[in-house]
Amino acid sequence: MPTVYITAPPSEADRIAETLVEDRLAACVNRLSTTSTYRWEGEVHRDDEAVLLAKTTADAYDDLINRVEAIHPYDVPCIERFDEAHVLESFAEWRTESVE
Amino acid sequence: MPTVYITAPPSEADRIAETLVEDRLAACVNRLSTTSTYRWEGEVHRDDEAVLLAKTTADAYDDLINRVEAIHPYDVPCIERFDEAHVLESFAEWRTESVE
Amino acid sequence: MPTVYITAPPSEADRIAETLVEDRLAACVNRLSTTSTYRWEGEVHRDDEAVLLAKTTADAYDDLINRVEAIHPYDVPCIERFDEAHVLESFAEWRTESVE
Repeated sequence: MPTVYITAPPSEADRIAETLVEDRLAACVNRLSTTSTYRWEGEVHRDDEAVLLAKTTADAYDDLINRVEAIHPYDVPCIERFDEAHVLESFAEWRTESVE
Repeated sequence: MPTVYITAPPSEADRIAETLVEDRLAACVNRLSTTSTYRWEGEVHRDDEAVLLAKTTADAYDDLINRVEAIHPYDVPCIERFDEAHVLESFAEWRTESVE
Repeated sequence: MPTVYITAPPSEADRIAETLVEDRLAACVNRLSTTSTYRWEGEVHRDDEAVLLAKTTADAYDDLINRVEAIHPYDVPCIERFDEAHVLESFAEWRTESVE
């Protein structure tokens, strides 16, 4: 099953997480605080951001990333898919029911 | 090698991490603070939790998840396996020795 | 594309992140705070550390881990590669340009 790794400004992160869960695109979103160091237009920057780890299903993945792109404030958001090699069966069932 | 992603209530997270390392089911557990947004019984909830990232071996994986299920306070805990594509050799050796 | 998972002492983490971005070995590094529980020389320890998640390319991966090994204060640093199953196309392009 896919875990989607998204970064967002701290002020927007809760809104994105809630939208994904309310619209049944993710069963659960874990939000973590991060400091990001990155290159943008030739300069190195450092900013506080949030990492969102959205727990979804293969079927819902395309709709989830389309929704994140639509509501995300960045032109080039970090949206990455990591596939789990195994998930506890009861947790997999709950995820599937939560995004149906 | 597997990294196991587990969420737990903040009050239980250290106990779970210590059990896994003391019982040689993981070489190392990284604990991170998170806020989780999720759907449960039809309602959207938000709670503070901990994310535990347990560094283990393929051989110890089944015993690790059985132990986490046995000591975890949730009926449906988030337990997910992510397989690393590569690990620094000296670190892989230390992990293997630490869980033997 | 590879995300490289590195742990480091809090006092060294920003220096490592900046080196990787300034030297074009990573486009972006997310730094998160963690508490690590681990076994070392037979004893269980607990320490505050940082997790660094370095966003790089397959081509730059070997140079990145060699650089981290060279500048990291630990004899046996945690350096692990996780391959993404999918990355938003515009973000993948930015990563590739940022490490070229």
